[in-house]
Amino acid sequence: MKAEIITIGDEILIGQIVDTNSAYISSVLNKIGVSVYQITSIQDDKAHLLEAFAAAQSRTDLVIITGGLGPTKDDITKHTLCEYFSDELVLDQSVLDHVTYLFKEYVKKPMLEANKTQALVPSKAQILVNKFGTAPGMWIEDKDTVFISMPGVPYEMKGLMENEVLPRLQEQFKLPYILHKTFLTYGMGESAIAERIEAFENELPATIKLAYLPSLGRVRLRLSTSGPEQDVLEKEMAIQTQKLLPLIDDIFVGFESDGELEEVVAKLLVDHNKTLAIAESCTGGQMVERFTKHGGASQYLKGSLVTYATQSKIDILGVDPAVIDKHSVVSAEVASQMAVNAKRLYKSDIGISTTGNAGPSKGDSDAEVGTVYIGIATDKGVTAHHFMMGNHRKRVIGKSVNKALELLRDVIRKEG
Amino acid sequence: MKAEIITIGDEILIGQIVDTNSAYISSVLNKIGVSVYQITSIQDDKAHLLEAFAAAQSRTDLVIITGGLGPTKDDITKHTLCEYFSDELVLDQSVLDHVTYLFKEYVKKPMLEANKTQALVPSKAQILVNKFGTAPGMWIEDKDTVFISMPGVPYEMKGLMENEVLPRLQEQFKLPYILHKTFLTYGMGESAIAERIEAFENELPATIKLAYLPSLGRVRLRLSTSGPEQDVLEKEMAIQTQKLLPLIDDIFVGFESDGELEEVVAKLLVDHNKTLAIAESCTGGQMVERFTKHGGASQYLKGSLVTYATQSKIDILGVDPAVIDKHSVVSAEVASQMAVNAKRLYKSDIGISTTGNAGPSKGDSDAEVGTVYIGIATDKGVTAHHFMMGNHRKRVIGKSVNKALELLRDVIRKEG
Repeated sequence: MKAEIITIGDEILIGQIVDTNSAYISSVLNKIGVSVYQITSIQDDKAHLLEAFAAAQSRTDLVIITGGLGPTKDDITKHTLCEYFSDELVLDQSVLDHVTYLFKEYVKKPMLEANKTQALVPSKAQILVNKFGTAPGMWIEDKDTVFISMPGVPYEMKGLMENEVLPRLQEQFKLPYILHKTFLTYGMGESAIAERIEAFENELPATIKLAYLPSLGRVRLRLSTSGPEQDVLEKEMAIQTQKLLPLIDDIFVGFESDGELEEVVAKLLVDHNKTLAIAESCTGGQMVERFTKHGGASQYLKGSLVTYATQSKIDILGVDPAVIDKHSVVSAEVASQMAVNAKRLYKSDIGISTTGNAGPSKGDSDAEVGTVYIGIATDKGVTAHHFMMGNHRKRVIGKSVNKALELLRDVIRKEG
Repeated sequence: MKAEIITIGDEILIGQIVDTNSAYISSVLNKIGVSVYQITSIQDDKAHLLEAFAAAQSRTDLVIITGGLGPTKDDITKHTLCEYFSDELVLDQSVLDHVTYLFKEYVKKPMLEANKTQALVPSKAQILVNKFGTAPGMWIEDKDTVFISMPGVPYEMKGLMENEVLPRLQEQFKLPYILHKTFLTYGMGESAIAERIEAFENELPATIKLAYLPSLGRVRLRLSTSGPEQDVLEKEMAIQTQKLLPLIDDIFVGFESDGELEEVVAKLLVDHNKTLAIAESCTGGQMVERFTKHGGASQYLKGSLVTYATQSKIDILGVDPAVIDKHSVVSAEVASQMAVNAKRLYKSDIGISTTGNAGPSKGDSDAEVGTVYIGIATDKGVTAHHFMMGNHRKRVIGKSVNKALELLRDVIRKEG
């Protein structure tokens, strides 16, 4: 089954928001065996919507539309769907009841005429219940194509996908299996990896595709395949995995299916019954945020001291000012003290620290932009590691957090 | 001038990455007067690329392509452009010299054959110098359409847009002006706002478009217009702004052009020569990260104590355990102590704190998921504010940080 995603909204085309809906929809469709052939983003413009609907219908079996279902005048998706299908809007009592209920229970304000219009839907549409909002999802079948229209608000759209769209697609269609396996590597460029695994790549069966995805100091290698029988795919993927792994042994750090790197570290901490404290300077809270954005962080995370100013490193984290004077605030010695003191202050099993200069200017030290030290303290002692992370602020911060997470993972694995 | 953006890469269509390039490109094109008509994301598939190139050329004057320019076999954009324009690849000596230089200076590893192929470009292409990588940008004119191809790595693409693409477009074409004005509001739903400003909306001249953008407890109202004369647009926009502002006086919090909310706060802090310290619980480092992701945070930011575990609030932040016992860790009293103590520990002018339960489970307190307290301490005293932020973890955290930033802004403005 081939799908096209159409995201609608001027805010996307003027770059006011990043369209994250498409990535989410693509990823969950992929998991149930639907390939996304194209993603199309267009403005709230009737003629263009009609053209995009027709183009999508001509090339795919499933058209998933988000956006343009709000109660305000700039929202035109529903009316345009009616025009496209030569249909008319009718009042759906179940939607009206739901909107009335939401206003009574949550909004606690009188319902407006505009809100009532949310209950008007094309007569050909089946309603998909939107638990989290007033605009219903709609499922319209036309010839051999299914059109699904959902609001663009991400959590409403996600609720609809999970509770309504995915189960219906799986029930109504016999879908193939799509299997991806992504190998995370560190320390080698994509062209060097490509040269090293050239023979492997040339010998891959035609049914398996290899892709290289470089980002922030890493290259991800992805093998993809699809077919009707899951166990055949898994067997073939296992064979190729066994061939590839020995070739990248020195740069392989894990599989993406294990989750984000911080989730891998979090799981290791919980499994080993260890707690973590963080002292951040140049990463400015991004390391702790990587952990806390996932639920369950309180199981292992004591907290983070973000000591941005040098004086705070002395006052709060207890770094020795003499050490700062002698080695500078961006140094292995300061990183070590930060890690040890974070561990002690938070009474944790492990302390990790970053100090460095992410740029754009030099800040409290003379260290070259991109210089980063990472310290790790455990019951067995403390180590500090030095890196040059380039001169692009966001990349320096992102790469530093990734590197710190890798070091953490290695230490927990090693010391258990 | 109408543009289409084509982003190429299987990783987009399977949802492995979010396409942030399109939003960036749309936003900078818009600023120089180019409207983006459509964004199209497709896989690394030759037939589909050819079809997408033709469709884009048929409807727009400018086709901006990102991705598929790497040195590995899954990268097919350059070859496909050759096929589309019936062109052939030729070696460009300037690109080869640049690639050789990058390897010698930065990669410090021998250059591979694959890297040398980066210097092969379609004979019809003008080269756009990519300072940050080995794949050059390409500018190809065909009939009345300009095709621009750039690598998909975001910082390489951004460098090319800023240094090469935007200046050339401005030089070569007479572009109109596009003007947006976005009003940030808080505390009222979009349909209620629409009802309130209905007369204003109905009276808007046809040249000005109004859009409603709800997100995380806010609604942004955007007025958009375009035309050949900047001062005419600005005058008309000023008239409409003066009409709209009195209608939304009680919910208006600022213009989006003032930057992200944390940038507004940062500027206020610098202007008033105030320093800030943060104590975060439920927001888990996201507040400090909002500040530190921008350069220059060390001018006003002392740091943040992320005390995730209750014991850390006592041990490090010095919150009184008796207060926690009496009022619970999620309470106005604890929020107040956290703010006061952060201010004292970091020796800052202002301390701000969050304590709450972002879910999914109840954590260290019995507070209902979504309960959040925000404390603000200044030299004039401390206040604490109570909110219910819903039951969706990411939204609770995001809304709490937004609310804290708003409170900060108000306090700095008020107390000066």
